[in-house]
Amino acid sequence: MEILFATSNKHKVAEASEVGKRYGIAFNQIHVSYPEIRSDNVAEVAKAGAEHVYSQIKKPMIVEDSGILINSLNDFPGTYSRFAFERIGNKGILKLMNGIEDRQARFVSAVAYISEVNARSGGIIYPGTNTETKIFEGVVDGRITLEERGAKGFGFDPIFLPKGYAKTFAEDPKTKNAISHRKIAFEKLCQHLKPKPV
Amino acid sequence: MEILFATSNKHKVAEASEVGKRYGIAFNQIHVSYPEIRSDNVAEVAKAGAEHVYSQIKKPMIVEDSGILINSLNDFPGTYSRFAFERIGNKGILKLMNGIEDRQARFVSAVAYISEVNARSGGIIYPGTNTETKIFEGVVDGRITLEERGAKGFGFDPIFLPKGYAKTFAEDPKTKNAISHRKIAFEKLCQHLKPKPV
Repeated sequence: MEILFATSNKHKVAEASEVGKRYGIAFNQIHVSYPEIRSDNVAEVAKAGAEHVYSQIKKPMIVEDSGILINSLNDFPGTYSRFAFERIGNKGILKLMNGIEDRQARFVSAVAYISEVNARSGGIIYPGTNTETKIFEGVVDGRITLEERGAKGFGFDPIFLPKGYAKTFAEDPKTKNAISHRKIAFEKLCQHLKPKPV
Repeated sequence: MEILFATSNKHKVAEASEVGKRYGIAFNQIHVSYPEIRSDNVAEVAKAGAEHVYSQIKKPMIVEDSGILINSLNDFPGTYSRFAFERIGNKGILKLMNGIEDRQARFVSAVAYISEVNARSGGIIYPGTNTETKIFEGVVDGRITLEERGAKGFGFDPIFLPKGYAKTFAEDPKTKNAISHRKIAFEKLCQHLKPKPV
């Protein structure tokens, strides 16, 4: 089974594929840009993005949005994580966190999946003429480290230490692939598409 | 002359009115929310916002977007200034700027004005049936201070020292009203609406 994944980030596709392969689901990257709405909620951002992409390509597909929410920074950078990463990076976040004791943070991910479903009217079934949007979310709790650690993964992975683990996501991609926000969201999507692992 | 100004920020209305009064133009605040698109460009954000508000109220009006672009932070926070202000505030920016020598920054503002213009078809004039969008922009150069100074104004005013002046926008609102990015943009709008001061 193939699912189109509209994203410019190949790392996300790799992480999704890692989950999908246990279900016989391949995620194929497509490059269709979409406006990212301003919302505090990754699910809303993903949903609006998916609706836009669907309006362009008229095929079932997914869009994922994610972010890191830092407790002591009032959930900054949240849905603006990519922007913050591009501008101030991990070093900027560490600088903002300098001297702050409460280092709690969480990574969140939402996958919006738009599929085509049958429409019924006057007893007649019109195959695939309606669309349905489903949202699958994942969260992982952790802490912001005191310095960057590790070079794998992407984005804020080098400064995120998942709860109960001693290595950052960038030091230990195996753990990331097993417990991350994105893994959880994609696991839910795959369960929905194909309830039993092959 | 009255112009509707869609914004939730009364400070912006006050600053616009300060300019408008010299032209006999009153800016009347209306509360119509609009999605802020993600763009590096305040003009694009203002334009998209104005188009949305016009689609809701079908009356001529303006939307203004502004931001502060900090050179050494790769123009962070830019069009995300309100979000960054709400989450990390002036203290967060000062923390990010800690130890950085290059403190150059600029405030930018763009006013999008949608007006109704006559349409012509087959020699007949249909009054006010088309719309026209004009953008008026202002920029002011300056520096980020080493600490917050002053309590007037709003947003990042306490940490912005305009080039050639010794006081921040929050210490000296009179100077702000005379030289700010917003003043320049609104001056251009007023010139457009009414070329001669009353």
